[in-house]
Amino acid sequence: MAIIIDGKAIASEIKEEIKKEVLLIEKQYGRKPTLAVILVGNNPASEVYVRMKKKTSEEAGINSMQILLDENTTQQELLTLINQLNADNSVNGILVQLPLPSHINENDIITAIDPVKDVDGFHPVNMGKLVIGQQDCFIPCTPYGCQELIIRTMPDIKGKHLVVVGRSNIVGKPLANLMIQKNNMANCIVTVCHTATKDIGYYTTQADILVVAVGRANMITKDMVKKGAVVIDVGINRIQDPANPDKTKLVGDVKFDEVSEVAYAITPVPGGVGPMTIAMLLKNTVKAFKLQNMK
Amino acid sequence: MAIIIDGKAIASEIKEEIKKEVLLIEKQYGRKPTLAVILVGNNPASEVYVRMKKKTSEEAGINSMQILLDENTTQQELLTLINQLNADNSVNGILVQLPLPSHINENDIITAIDPVKDVDGFHPVNMGKLVIGQQDCFIPCTPYGCQELIIRTMPDIKGKHLVVVGRSNIVGKPLANLMIQKNNMANCIVTVCHTATKDIGYYTTQADILVVAVGRANMITKDMVKKGAVVIDVGINRIQDPANPDKTKLVGDVKFDEVSEVAYAITPVPGGVGPMTIAMLLKNTVKAFKLQNMK
Repeated sequence: MAIIIDGKAIASEIKEEIKKEVLLIEKQYGRKPTLAVILVGNNPASEVYVRMKKKTSEEAGINSMQILLDENTTQQELLTLINQLNADNSVNGILVQLPLPSHINENDIITAIDPVKDVDGFHPVNMGKLVIGQQDCFIPCTPYGCQELIIRTMPDIKGKHLVVVGRSNIVGKPLANLMIQKNNMANCIVTVCHTATKDIGYYTTQADILVVAVGRANMITKDMVKKGAVVIDVGINRIQDPANPDKTKLVGDVKFDEVSEVAYAITPVPGGVGPMTIAMLLKNTVKAFKLQNMK
Repeated sequence: MAIIIDGKAIASEIKEEIKKEVLLIEKQYGRKPTLAVILVGNNPASEVYVRMKKKTSEEAGINSMQILLDENTTQQELLTLINQLNADNSVNGILVQLPLPSHINENDIITAIDPVKDVDGFHPVNMGKLVIGQQDCFIPCTPYGCQELIIRTMPDIKGKHLVVVGRSNIVGKPLANLMIQKNNMANCIVTVCHTATKDIGYYTTQADILVVAVGRANMITKDMVKKGAVVIDVGINRIQDPANPDKTKLVGDVKFDEVSEVAYAITPVPGGVGPMTIAMLLKNTVKAFKLQNMK
């Protein structure tokens, strides 16, 4: 049976490291890093995420600013708010919770955030710096968390074949770019598969490290995984609970029970990648403080 | 025997298309697109490239500005010049010929160019937009040229496996990001190999489309290529001519004679990717004019 990669425990360790760093920052600068999180509207899942971000920030000693806006907020109002936060030296990180209501253009909003406060790492400047290998950028939190889980599970990943299924702008693409970099935390051969791939299994069975970020419940089965692989499951899907049809349960993109029979290590859902995403957000917020104050 | 992909002829076609577009632009706006090329120092290879860029620009009807600076030009002097060109509305594209003398930081120079005039596509904003899939960016000329050669040789590339050997910021990384995009000119499964790959052949023999951008003469041999593959050779290496040891000759990263026995199609060196790079530079210059004038 595979090792279960305990994302919750690793995220806690990282949170403790951040807590210490925040104390040092407070001692040196007389103030804490501050993260502003903006939520527009009442998407229930987004409300949960924003609450968790606030709670976890505070546990790590980071100032949390929650800005809850009405569903009918205009794009111009949101842009005005972002400009105010960009100009406010007491705010180090700005995160706009996605998805936004359909009358607001997400791209315009992401691009309006000052890249040096873009702790989600979605601004084109940060994405470009990640590709080029410049250090003064923010890595999107979910792929950054995946990388942490991978290197803590498999310390020497140089030359390993990493296959990522899914090419989203928030997971697949940044992860691929992160893992081909020439450094000790990467240096993998990387293959990206997606909806246009006829035989996904042909690629996934080659993976020493398999990362799945598709959003399709139980899509990756045992026969699609190489014996001894490290499997990182980014998917979070709510399905009807087979054991209790009146209820629902959360599952990943990977069929956990059967894949854990062949994998060397695997992340559970929930409790795998999820907690890491927030931990890396805090890490990015501390980095933002440093980039803004150490020039 | 493989089809020889005639990069020179395809580049000429593209140049003719650009010529027509430039005529239309001139009619509508009363002026031509202008490309400023800056060369610092006397690197002989760079001098050849800059001369070729000037000649080809003029053949396509594009205004060419050559700015030749002394080897001892300071970084500050170069930055001042770039700022002037950024502010000059009559200049649409700015290209700083690389490599720069070692006392100048290339990164600082690339980042100083206004992204909307960055026809080389090396600015982080343009690289990020390329990854995200935004259209208002410049694709680096060499990978852009590779893409043109590929789609003109193999019209339906959806779901094909493209393997790129080499992860440079100017070819391998942007090409990989270009070819995983979900559109008719891409949509490939992409694998990136590099110096940390133990068995390059394991990956290259899987490629429906193989792009090699390493800079090692004759590195890819027949046994490393799948029968029927399209092979794009980006390398340009000067070696001693085996037939005439007193002379040198240009060869690619691919052993042309033997690989052309198994490939479906292959680019020669010279006359393959090289001419395409300049053609795509002109295409980017016309796009720059449009982006700047159609707002």
